[in-house]
Amino acid sequence: MKDRQLRDGKIVRSEEPLNLESPFENLDGFITPTARFYVRTHFPVPKIDKDEWRLSILGEVEKPFDISFDELSKLETRTLPVTLECAGNNREFLEPKVKGVQWALGAVGNANWTGVSLSILLERAGLKSSAREIIFEGADAGELEEAKAPRGKVTFARSIPLEKAQDVLLAYRMNDVDLPPLHGFPLRAIVPGWYAMASIKWLTRIVVTDRSFNGYYQTLDYAFWKNGELAPLREMQTKAQIARPANGETVPANSNVRVHGAAWTSGEISKVEVSVDGGSTWKEAKLLGESKPNAWRLWEYNWQTPKAGSATLIARAFDSRGETQPVERDWDRGTYMINQLLPINVAIE
Amino acid sequence: MKDRQLRDGKIVRSEEPLNLESPFENLDGFITPTARFYVRTHFPVPKIDKDEWRLSILGEVEKPFDISFDELSKLETRTLPVTLECAGNNREFLEPKVKGVQWALGAVGNANWTGVSLSILLERAGLKSSAREIIFEGADAGELEEAKAPRGKVTFARSIPLEKAQDVLLAYRMNDVDLPPLHGFPLRAIVPGWYAMASIKWLTRIVVTDRSFNGYYQTLDYAFWKNGELAPLREMQTKAQIARPANGETVPANSNVRVHGAAWTSGEISKVEVSVDGGSTWKEAKLLGESKPNAWRLWEYNWQTPKAGSATLIARAFDSRGETQPVERDWDRGTYMINQLLPINVAIE
Repeated sequence: MKDRQLRDGKIVRSEEPLNLESPFENLDGFITPTARFYVRTHFPVPKIDKDEWRLSILGEVEKPFDISFDELSKLETRTLPVTLECAGNNREFLEPKVKGVQWALGAVGNANWTGVSLSILLERAGLKSSAREIIFEGADAGELEEAKAPRGKVTFARSIPLEKAQDVLLAYRMNDVDLPPLHGFPLRAIVPGWYAMASIKWLTRIVVTDRSFNGYYQTLDYAFWKNGELAPLREMQTKAQIARPANGETVPANSNVRVHGAAWTSGEISKVEVSVDGGSTWKEAKLLGESKPNAWRLWEYNWQTPKAGSATLIARAFDSRGETQPVERDWDRGTYMINQLLPINVAIE
Repeated sequence: MKDRQLRDGKIVRSEEPLNLESPFENLDGFITPTARFYVRTHFPVPKIDKDEWRLSILGEVEKPFDISFDELSKLETRTLPVTLECAGNNREFLEPKVKGVQWALGAVGNANWTGVSLSILLERAGLKSSAREIIFEGADAGELEEAKAPRGKVTFARSIPLEKAQDVLLAYRMNDVDLPPLHGFPLRAIVPGWYAMASIKWLTRIVVTDRSFNGYYQTLDYAFWKNGELAPLREMQTKAQIARPANGETVPANSNVRVHGAAWTSGEISKVEVSVDGGSTWKEAKLLGESKPNAWRLWEYNWQTPKAGSATLIARAFDSRGETQPVERDWDRGTYMINQLLPINVAIE
């Protein structure tokens, strides 16, 4: 493991904007403690007064309205475990290097989110028949330096198609306490199964539209080439990650070593396999706990280590749709959706 | 006028791909001679055998079909004068400098185009009720070096919404002779009123789709920020250009000097005004010939020059929709749609 600057147990990937990674080798349970959950921001963290804050629902609705935090917190709640992964997680493994935050394995976490179903607010507003997409807008905004970006202030915003709306939770609690400022206080849209750029923090506006939204974070950023056309990133790709042994770790020879990690997808994981010989042969790992859609699944594999030397470990996941991980990088994914097989090199002594 | 490398009377802006500009000070009639018409290419010019070539009409149609050049040339024809302007015309005037071919005033021309109405082929194919856009694909293709571009071969392609289809001419003659290879032999889609990137050369496929097309030349290139959303470039913006005197030219003092040029828009020009004092006062110019939609309008103004010194000339156009030119650059247009007022500086001796 490389030398790293840690803050409160997280790796500092950048200060402005603040980007903190959770060392993946610390994985030790189904729920990631909030203090260890990775942090991804694009602009300074908005300072929001809960009593002043309002959420607006507008656009292609019959009765647009605003709602206060107090009113919102009186509505029926649900609690869901949902895994959020940054679409650029694992970027550090790309060769050649690409632009963007150089995340290793830890821009991913799994939390219990508590809040109100988006459907409740949409029902109150009454969707018009013209409704086609729903845009979530955060309070985070700023100027971008990239030549191709729009001038002036850009707000972090993302859309989902109408058919995804029923899955969305408007969460104000994370792991049973109030959402912290770094994670979107007072309200975060949780879009289960999608990369986390869709789960808008510091949520302030929900805009129902009659057409495709083509904002900056849906086109110039957080997009990829799908059959030659630019498409917004959406579903998380199937992935298994090894927590321990970590890359560069030394394990004892002729011993039982627990290889363990987590696997996730947009949907449910059906199987995880492990190779201890660089991908030549594969063995099935044991899935732990029970399966919950759009939450990761912990897994473990008991490795009988050989005599002293070295080994390359690889894990791969399969999901309920029959999808698995590619062996090679698909560069049409740009700097995102990195789920090709990742070798973990260990020394055996 | 700067020193320039000329080839067959055109300014060489780049060799690979070939980009040739028509010196705008040579403007001397409503029709731009084909030999002087500007050339904009993105890839090597395709070598096409007219007898082998086929145009395919496919997608959301009842009866997809291919048509040979021989068959096509037996269909009813129309001839239209249409002005084509590169969406990056005038880029040389931008400060600070931006990427892209550094066109001065001459990435624009007006030709007579002869061919078959797109509607005739669409009627034969029979549009399905799901039809929403029409993609034109050229035979020109190649690999792009930009980091954000798709990998592999990219074909030059562009779409129009269905409601624009009735205006489109599939042209195989330019100024009464066969379309030359540099201008799209054997067939070019002419999309009147739109910037020329939509008028696909070396046309080989017409694909009817049920949704927005998001190809490279519609999103990462030839797009701009419209109310914070990425939108493909479409209509030409209102513009008047002065052909003579040219920037840096010397005119006689105390004389009658003919100031002349052309003006165009997506639609029809209603008025051109000229200022000889850097924009403080404006006089109406005389519009020449008759108005033809989506073709430029020549104009002239008789300038009584003062005593020796210097002057800044500016022309501005107004169109039938009441639009005119902005005074300042709108940077959300990126490197395209450059129609703010351009000062032409002349010496008076």
